[in-house]
Amino acid sequence: MSEKFVYDFKEGNASMRELLGGKGANLAEMTNMGLPVPQGFTVTTAACTKYYEDNEKISDDIIKEIETHLKALEDLSGKKFGDPQNPLLVSVRSGARASMPGMMDTILNLGLNEEVVKGFAQKTNNERFAYDSYRRFIQMFSDVVMELSKKDFEDIIDQKKKEKGVTQDTELDANDLQDIIVKFKKYYKDQKGEDFPSSPKEQLIEAVKAVFRSWNNERAIYYRRMNDIPSSWGTAVNVQMMVFGNMGNTSGTGVAFTRNAATGENKLFGEFLMNAQGEDVVAGIRTPQPIDQLKNTMPEVYEQFLTICKTLEDHYKDMQDMEFTIEEGKLFMLQTRNGKRTPAAALKIACDLVEEGKIDKKKAVSMIEPRSLDALLHPQFDAKILKEKTKIATGLAASPGAACGKIVFTAQDAIKKSKEGEKVILVRLETSPEDIEGMDLAQGILTVRGGMTSHAAVVARGMGKCCVCGCGEIKINEKEKTMEIAGKTYKEGDYVSIDGSTGNVYGEEIKTVKASITGYFEKIMTWADEFRRLQIRTNADTPKDAQTAVSFGAQGVGLCRTEHMFFEADRIKAMREMILSKTKEQREKALEKLLPMQQKDFEGIFEALQGMPVTIRFLDPPLHEFVPQEEKEQKELAQELGISLEDVKATVKSLHEFNPMMGHRGCRLAVTYPEIAVMQTTAVIKAAINVLKKHSDWAIVPEIMIPLVGELKELQYVKSVVVKTADALIKEASVNLKYKVGTMIEIPRAALVADEIAKDAEFFSFGTNDLTQMTFGFSRDDAGKFLESYYKKSIYEQDPFAKLDKNGVFKLIKIAVEGGRKTRKDLKVGICGEHGGDPSSIQLCEEAKLDYVSCSPFRVPIARLAAAQAAIAASK
Amino acid sequence: MSEKFVYDFKEGNASMRELLGGKGANLAEMTNMGLPVPQGFTVTTAACTKYYEDNEKISDDIIKEIETHLKALEDLSGKKFGDPQNPLLVSVRSGARASMPGMMDTILNLGLNEEVVKGFAQKTNNERFAYDSYRRFIQMFSDVVMELSKKDFEDIIDQKKKEKGVTQDTELDANDLQDIIVKFKKYYKDQKGEDFPSSPKEQLIEAVKAVFRSWNNERAIYYRRMNDIPSSWGTAVNVQMMVFGNMGNTSGTGVAFTRNAATGENKLFGEFLMNAQGEDVVAGIRTPQPIDQLKNTMPEVYEQFLTICKTLEDHYKDMQDMEFTIEEGKLFMLQTRNGKRTPAAALKIACDLVEEGKIDKKKAVSMIEPRSLDALLHPQFDAKILKEKTKIATGLAASPGAACGKIVFTAQDAIKKSKEGEKVILVRLETSPEDIEGMDLAQGILTVRGGMTSHAAVVARGMGKCCVCGCGEIKINEKEKTMEIAGKTYKEGDYVSIDGSTGNVYGEEIKTVKASITGYFEKIMTWADEFRRLQIRTNADTPKDAQTAVSFGAQGVGLCRTEHMFFEADRIKAMREMILSKTKEQREKALEKLLPMQQKDFEGIFEALQGMPVTIRFLDPPLHEFVPQEEKEQKELAQELGISLEDVKATVKSLHEFNPMMGHRGCRLAVTYPEIAVMQTTAVIKAAINVLKKHSDWAIVPEIMIPLVGELKELQYVKSVVVKTADALIKEASVNLKYKVGTMIEIPRAALVADEIAKDAEFFSFGTNDLTQMTFGFSRDDAGKFLESYYKKSIYEQDPFAKLDKNGVFKLIKIAVEGGRKTRKDLKVGICGEHGGDPSSIQLCEEAKLDYVSCSPFRVPIARLAAAQAAIAASK
Repeated sequence: MSEKFVYDFKEGNASMRELLGGKGANLAEMTNMGLPVPQGFTVTTAACTKYYEDNEKISDDIIKEIETHLKALEDLSGKKFGDPQNPLLVSVRSGARASMPGMMDTILNLGLNEEVVKGFAQKTNNERFAYDSYRRFIQMFSDVVMELSKKDFEDIIDQKKKEKGVTQDTELDANDLQDIIVKFKKYYKDQKGEDFPSSPKEQLIEAVKAVFRSWNNERAIYYRRMNDIPSSWGTAVNVQMMVFGNMGNTSGTGVAFTRNAATGENKLFGEFLMNAQGEDVVAGIRTPQPIDQLKNTMPEVYEQFLTICKTLEDHYKDMQDMEFTIEEGKLFMLQTRNGKRTPAAALKIACDLVEEGKIDKKKAVSMIEPRSLDALLHPQFDAKILKEKTKIATGLAASPGAACGKIVFTAQDAIKKSKEGEKVILVRLETSPEDIEGMDLAQGILTVRGGMTSHAAVVARGMGKCCVCGCGEIKINEKEKTMEIAGKTYKEGDYVSIDGSTGNVYGEEIKTVKASITGYFEKIMTWADEFRRLQIRTNADTPKDAQTAVSFGAQGVGLCRTEHMFFEADRIKAMREMILSKTKEQREKALEKLLPMQQKDFEGIFEALQGMPVTIRFLDPPLHEFVPQEEKEQKELAQELGISLEDVKATVKSLHEFNPMMGHRGCRLAVTYPEIAVMQTTAVIKAAINVLKKHSDWAIVPEIMIPLVGELKELQYVKSVVVKTADALIKEASVNLKYKVGTMIEIPRAALVADEIAKDAEFFSFGTNDLTQMTFGFSRDDAGKFLESYYKKSIYEQDPFAKLDKNGVFKLIKIAVEGGRKTRKDLKVGICGEHGGDPSSIQLCEEAKLDYVSCSPFRVPIARLAAAQAAIAASK
Repeated sequence: MSEKFVYDFKEGNASMRELLGGKGANLAEMTNMGLPVPQGFTVTTAACTKYYEDNEKISDDIIKEIETHLKALEDLSGKKFGDPQNPLLVSVRSGARASMPGMMDTILNLGLNEEVVKGFAQKTNNERFAYDSYRRFIQMFSDVVMELSKKDFEDIIDQKKKEKGVTQDTELDANDLQDIIVKFKKYYKDQKGEDFPSSPKEQLIEAVKAVFRSWNNERAIYYRRMNDIPSSWGTAVNVQMMVFGNMGNTSGTGVAFTRNAATGENKLFGEFLMNAQGEDVVAGIRTPQPIDQLKNTMPEVYEQFLTICKTLEDHYKDMQDMEFTIEEGKLFMLQTRNGKRTPAAALKIACDLVEEGKIDKKKAVSMIEPRSLDALLHPQFDAKILKEKTKIATGLAASPGAACGKIVFTAQDAIKKSKEGEKVILVRLETSPEDIEGMDLAQGILTVRGGMTSHAAVVARGMGKCCVCGCGEIKINEKEKTMEIAGKTYKEGDYVSIDGSTGNVYGEEIKTVKASITGYFEKIMTWADEFRRLQIRTNADTPKDAQTAVSFGAQGVGLCRTEHMFFEADRIKAMREMILSKTKEQREKALEKLLPMQQKDFEGIFEALQGMPVTIRFLDPPLHEFVPQEEKEQKELAQELGISLEDVKATVKSLHEFNPMMGHRGCRLAVTYPEIAVMQTTAVIKAAINVLKKHSDWAIVPEIMIPLVGELKELQYVKSVVVKTADALIKEASVNLKYKVGTMIEIPRAALVADEIAKDAEFFSFGTNDLTQMTFGFSRDDAGKFLESYYKKSIYEQDPFAKLDKNGVFKLIKIAVEGGRKTRKDLKVGICGEHGGDPSSIQLCEEAKLDYVSCSPFRVPIARLAAAQAAIAASK
């Protein structure tokens, strides 16, 4: 039997998510639960994959299968596709395995044409409704399937309204709509050179293709990249019998969450619009009513809906996000899914569900998206400062957190300014899927129209980004790039501050402060720590950073970059003196000046860590980074050091490298100038001795990390310098201080010969930034030039610097761990690249049985949770 | 039982070379063969390794073992170490596993002190001889063990000669020598702050240590690097009873080869000096007599020596290089080893030995050092030009081949000028081990003193480098950096030409021509091809290079770099126009201009290869390499293209990369500008079609190679562009042309995901230059700054760009071959980095079961031989 590419709703269930997509699987599940679902069928994600394999063609076999299931739907409904007497109309919706809100496109009312619309008008006895449905269909089909501009169609409608002297769509009658339809079709023919398709079957197949195509539009690719969704998954297509929320005053449509998506409160939360189609609610064009008002409008429907909500939440054991339509007093469920929520809500809901006995702690820990915690660690307004500020407007508190930045009015400007290093707030009438990259890069989002379930609100919550929406007091002038609030004009570039937790808007810059881990957050973190195997360390170069990280739960410092200490104003001079030295003696003299400064830093860090392990990496960057490149500064330096400008220039020139990333840096510096390693060792060991004298109960064991090692003998050479220096100091001080010497594995060769290197390395730490650069053969600084093309062409779907590359770099990591532990069974292995704070990378670290991950202080809670989830997943 | 670190000669044999070193093993073998060998013992290479493990100390156990064997030697000889009545004197010589001529140091006459020398004088009844021996010992010991300058001691002797008004050492009598010894010892004490050691045992242990230490002197490290000898091998030390060639006129010493080391002629060839110690011959200080004159001097000894020569050659089945000493009419063998020889001699000897039935063809092929063939492919003087030239002097034809260059008088100058790109001839009074790097870098070597077995001659032959030595007509003025020949003065920087096959010297520049493969060379190559499994291809960018390679036996082109074609004057303009294009259309217009030029090149190469495979690599370097960096040129370019200078500057700036090696290059160019791949595909396919039309019997299958691939999808994208273009052209031309699309594996990730990449790659070619850079994480252009330190500190012993790194890069290659062939069983795999012409790398290619290696045209014969040897070794 050949593969099955189409499933009736009643043939599927919730576990078939991979094949049917999230929406399709849940429609099937609801059907099986006996809930009122308009029937239909799902064209599978496998069909989408095949579509791309077949060079963007739908095979005849699949078309035949669709027709068979369409026939079954006709039989079930008693209606007929394309039959003017009793027409079957359908919606066509995308539905991928993971929810991709607003990414994919929807077509309603498919099946109408010039003949059918007439019969439909007769049958519904509502001519205006029928032609409005047809008008909407033409508009959506042209936009989604044929990629004609939505705006041009809106212009035709606006033109008609002007002619008639009305402002609302509802004020147009059936004749007006018929006229509009004629104009739509003419416009369509002008643009496409052919008539608007009148065959319903042709419409259907084209719509299915359009959904498949939309899987690879730029927005979808960007969203997938952002959310770690592989392009190979594909999307399913759901073809569903139409029900109409716009059939009059006993019809309506809405969306609802079983709990509050912003706060997590266990209370039904949602909105509806009477006499409207679903798109009207989601697009935020009209502002809807709160769901509990439905009790007054249609009490029986409301009760029935409440029961369904409870049934669904109990069934899925998670907060549900549902779409429904009421057609002439009858309730239909169009969708259910686990609802997106704010990070704070996610924590509360998870804790509450445990409290209510619906899930266990493991499940609760697994429910939280680690990256979402970021928002909770993000700035809030300083309460004291805020007291003195007056808000200029209030909108809906759509996504919590506070943000401040310069106003921009388009996503393009948001992207541009952000890339220039500006912090911006994106202010829009309403957002649309095209805006997604700009939203991602902005500090926060402020919209004029749309409710809590509008595009802006849903996407911002998904991103964990501060958002205030539906702030109707704002009047935007897009052309002038200004906005007016209460008579005052704000220009692009002016400061605005928004509070996504209150909905307040401030017309000035307001400082923000970081939040701390308390309440539900603390509870979840405590549970996470119970399940976690990986230790979490932090990358900290200063005592302050180290302290912050410890307060977030860091269990040690995994990477202390010593060179950052040299860039400070008072130190760079000594550093430059060292670099400009001509002899070992001169160099040692300059290094002597750096010694007490480094030592003091290390003491501060040892103090902050209170005996927890600290890994200190020796000087890494090429020396040219420390010398001035501009003649003016070179002159100053020459004067300061009392040498000639020519000497300075000659040194700067001699330090030039064609590929500094692959040049004289890392342990290569210590091989050529062992005196640097001597100074750094002295600073580490003296600092440890001093702190140990004050706190004899602390188990201080400094871990000295030699960077950029590619060969055992290289490590042995530098280690011998370190050991000789350290042992002499320890003996002199007559203390009992232990220390370790290890290395970063950041060069492919180091991973390949890790079994050798482990002979002398007491620990490994993967420097995955460099390892990724060299494994991929592209430099992070330069890759921007071509990586955009790579993303567009789906060659790479993820930024390998953000997510550890499972197929390549991770293979090297596994080789290294295996080799290293073969030689040294108890070898401690960690990771200190930026991947150490990325949940998907942490999962790989668990898989490779690393001992710890190290990340920036603000990622420590994320890493704690991700490590717990990885451990839970591994234990299954 | 603990490890044995010392062996008497009679305990060993030739197979124990690894433990006893070459010299020690052969002394043992000769002892067992019953040949007259002064007895002694060998301290093993394992003792040397232990010495370094123990931080440069000889353990007490080993010292005890030495003492035991010394006692046995005393018993055997009836003499006693340090006994004035009947003293045992010994020589101490190094002897590594591989012969390292001149690299390690020798001490003779060890065991003498103030007391012993007196007894020795009485016993030998030759006071002058005894004190001369003691004088030599102090000098050698001070130099080798204590690192005091040889010259300062020579100065003391010269001072004495001046006082006495004599010129020859032999004119000094016993009293003079005693006086010299007093001065030597005073000088020693002044320098070292202690008395010259008088205890023979202390002398012995210090001498053994000195030999061990000398294993790691700079010259030894350089020699090992040049000759691929790992430092872990260590050297053995041979302690041997002294015999004296300087005991009067019935004593003498010499070296001889069983066949002519320069020509290979089957005729004893050697030199001797009567009344001299061995060092006198080797150092070339006195010019010795030809060996056959020994027949007249001491007929019986000569006959005995001839018999021994035959015995040894028959035993070792190879030409032997022997040292002997005659002590008062009695012949002693001090050494035998397989003799170094010129490449031409090596070929003749190998062929002759097969002819004589002593070895088989496999053995003959294995006997030739592949790299030595280089010299045969190196320039000879153009015979026609040479006829018109007059030589200015004649020396000994010490190492064949012709060379021409500017005169330098010191090794330092040779190094300096060579690195500046000059071709130089090193002219020296005589060479010494310190000169080895300068000799390596010079085109040829010309010495004033020394015979065919002098340092210069032996080393030059080993290097396959042209050398004329013993050219006494030259008078060098080292201070002025000039030389005089027949009254004419030549300055540093003047041209000189030397012919190592005739010994002629010319005082002008003479053009040289390449040699071809004929005679014995051809015979050996034919045999090599019988045993070879690997195919040999060539890296050729032009029809001319391709033709040369084919004449040397290349079986295809493994790498045709298309970008080199763009650098030519008439083409770079179109290339620049392409780069400065703002739109795809402009780019395509510029590419159209390049198309016919590329196509013509490809046609030429296809013609040259006559149907053998040709692999064409698509554009690889970053575009900035093609644009002018100087403002003057930028202005010209702007004018030519009719655009503004600012435009040119902006483009140049936008092309700047921080790490161009890891930037926008390779297939990344084809991903961003697919039109480049379209043009290149068109050029390849049209060229193939044209040539195929002329030669329908040729099996032309162009292999298009996509560079710098790191991910399957990247290859798939570019391949789809190639296939679409190629298939359309083939269809249009209605020909039956096949082509392949493959990739270079030159990024670590490509090797790691090779199983994936092989889904679409029809062949792999390892680009080991880039692969080495990225695996090691250092750029070839920048590594010079620190690699010197690495070599000095023995961290790296080999240039990984010259010899494939077995532990790191080769591991990636094995991963890639295994992965690739798992996916595609018949995957063709080759190598096209510079390693493709390096014998040790070729051995690894055989091990990894590659299909072919590709190298520069002049390395093709070397690769053919190395591949045969690798196959023979693998079959064992």
